[in-house]
Amino acid sequence: MIELARRAAVQELIARYGGLLDREDYQGWLDLFDAEASYRIAPRENIDQDLPASLMLCETKKALTDRIVAMLKANKYRPIIARHVVGAPEIVATQGDTARVRAGYALYHVDGDGHAELYSVGCYDFALAFTGARAAIRDALVIVDSFLIPTLLVKPI
Amino acid sequence: MIELARRAAVQELIARYGGLLDREDYQGWLDLFDAEASYRIAPRENIDQDLPASLMLCETKKALTDRIVAMLKANKYRPIIARHVVGAPEIVATQGDTARVRAGYALYHVDGDGHAELYSVGCYDFALAFTGARAAIRDALVIVDSFLIPTLLVKPI
Amino acid sequence: MIELARRAAVQELIARYGGLLDREDYQGWLDLFDAEASYRIAPRENIDQDLPASLMLCETKKALTDRIVAMLKANKYRPIIARHVVGAPEIVATQGDTARVRAGYALYHVDGDGHAELYSVGCYDFALAFTGARAAIRDALVIVDSFLIPTLLVKPI
Repeated sequence: MIELARRAAVQELIARYGGLLDREDYQGWLDLFDAEASYRIAPRENIDQDLPASLMLCETKKALTDRIVAMLKANKYRPIIARHVVGAPEIVATQGDTARVRAGYALYHVDGDGHAELYSVGCYDFALAFTGARAAIRDALVIVDSFLIPTLLVKPI
Repeated sequence: MIELARRAAVQELIARYGGLLDREDYQGWLDLFDAEASYRIAPRENIDQDLPASLMLCETKKALTDRIVAMLKANKYRPIIARHVVGAPEIVATQGDTARVRAGYALYHVDGDGHAELYSVGCYDFALAFTGARAAIRDALVIVDSFLIPTLLVKPI
Repeated sequence: MIELARRAAVQELIARYGGLLDREDYQGWLDLFDAEASYRIAPRENIDQDLPASLMLCETKKALTDRIVAMLKANKYRPIIARHVVGAPEIVATQGDTARVRAGYALYHVDGDGHAELYSVGCYDFALAFTGARAAIRDALVIVDSFLIPTLLVKPI
């Protein structure tokens, strides 16, 4: 029972992750992370070769929050519209009150003329912490296979 | 228990929505909607600014059914093949026997030469009504971030 | 209960199918199939018209295993990176300890420069066999709406 409830929580979390970014509800998005959270975006090549370089790295939740605040202050212009399509999540491993899940994503950016372009494809690789049936993100790793126009990598993926 | 069963029903409904359109099983698709259903496609910009203009609007299930019948009569030529990839659904809110769910989608159109093109990305925003663990669509809002060749917007998305 | 547990197993299987291919864990991928498994990739047109021609056909699990072994031997060069985004699965029918499920997919290929291209869209149409709440693939049919560069169709989709 608890297992099915936790699986449901994982699915909801993964779906909300993308939905909240798309709706630009960054406070709601930050609330998906637990107090000990880290956030990292890295190219797949670096992950495969165990290279430390990242495209974005926030080692604490405070650093992640600061980054979001700075981004919102800098974005005076109408930001690019994002749309995530996140695939079915895979529960790779569970141990006690933690789990590791993965989900492929496609992220589209849409400009003011309604033209969509595939901005990035890759995979979420999240370590989650459960409290009862509630799931929160402990360590978020976004493995990026591809992304366009790296100068635009201001927002989380 | 009922909650998990309803979540399963939501996931099945969202998956069938795209699958039935892709298989051109329009009767099966109409059966996903309850008797009081409405159906609307609108650009994200209009939704964000609360503008009433729609790309498609059927305020009753009868209007939606009529629209499908007219579309099938008009389409003598081999229609464009559609393929939906619908992301994990998010249950935004529940109240009694109703729920509001959202799911990002990517819709591809494939021509006779097997060339696929991204026709539209956006988000389903559905009000659902439950009868026990069965879910039906009450109000379907398709929020379109982008779409190509508006003259082809004959079929539901 | 068993029904919800089996639905969870279906979702996990569909998610792992794409994830294992993306991680090039072909042994893990083969383990998703049961001993009687078959694997077929065919264009949607052929399926719709009941034509027997396939893009790939392995009538037994041994044939599928041999194909994977041959592919791994042939691929001395750095293989193309694959990324699957698999949509929510639809449980089309269940009967006793079997089920038929469908899920739309988008498959991206990423080259060495981090440029992603939509390689194929289509639909998984799987006959599954359950043992308790465990699901295994009995007959895998990959219905391909589109695919690029057919000479590269060496790997499973």
